[in-house]
Amino acid sequence: MGIPDIVKQVAKNEAVEPAKLARAVADGLVVIPYNPVHSPDPQGMGQGLRVKVNVNIGTSPDHADLEEELEKTRIALKYGTHALMDLSIGGNISEIRKAIIKECSVPLGTVPIYQAGLERARKDAIVNMTEDDIFNSIEAHAKDGVDFMTVHCGVNRESIEKLRSAPRVTDVVSRGGAFLTAWILHNDQENPLYANYDHLLDLAREHEFTLSLGDGLRPGCIFDASDQAQFTELMTLGRLVERARKAGVQAMVEGPGHVPMHQIESNVALEKSICKGAPFYVLGPLVTDIAPGYDHIVSAIGGAIAAMAGADFLCYVTPSEHLSLPTIQDVKEGTIASRIAAHAVDLARGKDMELDMEMAVARRELDFDRQFKAAMDPDKAVDVRENRRPAHEDTCSMCGDLCAIKTVKDYLRGEK
Amino acid sequence: MGIPDIVKQVAKNEAVEPAKLARAVADGLVVIPYNPVHSPDPQGMGQGLRVKVNVNIGTSPDHADLEEELEKTRIALKYGTHALMDLSIGGNISEIRKAIIKECSVPLGTVPIYQAGLERARKDAIVNMTEDDIFNSIEAHAKDGVDFMTVHCGVNRESIEKLRSAPRVTDVVSRGGAFLTAWILHNDQENPLYANYDHLLDLAREHEFTLSLGDGLRPGCIFDASDQAQFTELMTLGRLVERARKAGVQAMVEGPGHVPMHQIESNVALEKSICKGAPFYVLGPLVTDIAPGYDHIVSAIGGAIAAMAGADFLCYVTPSEHLSLPTIQDVKEGTIASRIAAHAVDLARGKDMELDMEMAVARRELDFDRQFKAAMDPDKAVDVRENRRPAHEDTCSMCGDLCAIKTVKDYLRGEK
Repeated sequence: MGIPDIVKQVAKNEAVEPAKLARAVADGLVVIPYNPVHSPDPQGMGQGLRVKVNVNIGTSPDHADLEEELEKTRIALKYGTHALMDLSIGGNISEIRKAIIKECSVPLGTVPIYQAGLERARKDAIVNMTEDDIFNSIEAHAKDGVDFMTVHCGVNRESIEKLRSAPRVTDVVSRGGAFLTAWILHNDQENPLYANYDHLLDLAREHEFTLSLGDGLRPGCIFDASDQAQFTELMTLGRLVERARKAGVQAMVEGPGHVPMHQIESNVALEKSICKGAPFYVLGPLVTDIAPGYDHIVSAIGGAIAAMAGADFLCYVTPSEHLSLPTIQDVKEGTIASRIAAHAVDLARGKDMELDMEMAVARRELDFDRQFKAAMDPDKAVDVRENRRPAHEDTCSMCGDLCAIKTVKDYLRGEK
Repeated sequence: MGIPDIVKQVAKNEAVEPAKLARAVADGLVVIPYNPVHSPDPQGMGQGLRVKVNVNIGTSPDHADLEEELEKTRIALKYGTHALMDLSIGGNISEIRKAIIKECSVPLGTVPIYQAGLERARKDAIVNMTEDDIFNSIEAHAKDGVDFMTVHCGVNRESIEKLRSAPRVTDVVSRGGAFLTAWILHNDQENPLYANYDHLLDLAREHEFTLSLGDGLRPGCIFDASDQAQFTELMTLGRLVERARKAGVQAMVEGPGHVPMHQIESNVALEKSICKGAPFYVLGPLVTDIAPGYDHIVSAIGGAIAAMAGADFLCYVTPSEHLSLPTIQDVKEGTIASRIAAHAVDLARGKDMELDMEMAVARRELDFDRQFKAAMDPDKAVDVRENRRPAHEDTCSMCGDLCAIKTVKDYLRGEK
């Protein structure tokens, strides 16, 4: 059997050996979320590949504007996201999803339980969701072309018991995790995604979507990080990864969340160990809780450290996290902050150094047009410079003619 | 001899034992920049203390507006900077400095060679500075109350020879380093700050200012990081630290600059080793060069990693770095980004956790007013939320009534 074309494409983009990549995919160390109905430009997340960035968009009950979400999709793609998740919970969710999938050239993810829970909540209450509601939602998303789906299979009676017996400051902050926790407690039944995991694997294999094993019990503040409930869930996910591999289904694992700096490395190491090298998809992590309005920066710090430690896929956080639905501008800022974190780690591994070299040379040459071209966001760079124009074209308004580079150039390299 | 009052004050603020802090200061492991003429609220930088943040402000030849610089001072103080440097090189520098010192309640630093070089440049050329120009500038700054001064004593013939023989992409990007490199090469003489270091130590002891041993040969792009010139200078600084200690003068060491992520820890470890535990004051470090307009984020990543590895004092970088003189808004954003990095490291060490706990509890209680009060920038948090108002006061417009916290509260804690 030859190497599939999408593996070859990813291998080419990543400059890795195709056979080696194919082996990593077969071993579950790399995932390439790819639903043939969507057929996105393939992206690989995992061992030996560039660090990837995901952007979350989607409507809310308070604000549902499809055109705005499509513009967010375009902005996220323009600034280089590698994947997009539609988390819509407002308006006509099915139509919104279909429209976003059409607009989205990279792998697209969703959380089907949102729709199942929401549609039931519109009728009576989330806790009245049936197993069919959940699996029908998953199947509908798959048929629409969703490439990867967050499924909170690890929120089960065992992990909820840990949550109950080892109190937290903020109990459950994952939306899907909350739906399932409430459901399990109310119905006094096991999580259908856990109890019927084999059925989920059948669906995933049939429709060729990738599982993103959600961390429904991720910590919601730094004080809850790395606790009994979190690691109980992680250990469950580790077992589910192995079952997915045996079933020939691609699976990655989602991770925290809110984590103080000194625990990030061990969180990544533990995921890699417990989940046998499964790609690790982290949200943030946020390294402090007191900077609402700046959580994209808080998350860039945590994300860079996590990726350096081995996390493969960074879910962005926007400046409006914890406060409101992100605007288009928030999506742009969040995308860039995450891409900075991911790129910094790639650079440290000797990858993608060309633009940094181009920037360094352009700075030495005091060639601002060339600097703008090498910038991650040329428009912003131009704006900042134009906002406070220098007196001379080959300097900036910070040092003016006392520019260090100008001063030394004449003497060190013998031009004077 | 009793423990000086300023040491006691710092010990109290930092919740450390006064006698232990006094010993760390005596050993040179902590500096408390404090010129009695200025008498700022004392701040300690170094072993066992909180990570500190510095904000650079100052006029340029292209843009010199004292009122704007005073407003930058107030903004930096409002958002919690621990120190301020006036780097003015435009307008009436002496008057600007005096006005900023008056406005500044935290330790204030300057780079006296800027004024010496600039005043000479206005007459003929920087390279015509005399030794008297340099030392007179230092003395004038000291008499005005400057608490710490960057002195590029390590830019000497030996380190410049390394620069010449081991080529870089961007030679010298430090303004003071560039002045001295040009001066040494043009005059074919040793750097006066190095050749007459004992005289500098006499001035520092007499006027009670702290030396900030500048890294004039710091890398200007990630490709130049950790090279021959940089470490030759660092080794010189290590020897100068020991001479300062013998002379009873407080000294800290400045560090890079542009450093790829995988080299940050070793840069810090090396400074601590070569400079015998002297407080390390880093600029950034910037972990990629391709994000002009976002260098405050790039720098927050590098600064957090450096501080976690032992750097004591983070010089902020603003979004306008490499592009233009920062605006007041840039100063605010840079200050907050650096404070996030510093605070994240303090948290990881178990310090200053109260506000994070307050935020976590306020989030659990869905009490937004309480969240705003615990925020580093309450105004921004309010703005983001108001910009997209939720339908209900106890939710935000991201999840609306599908709020995870609301969903679970009712079930997990037995309220339903």
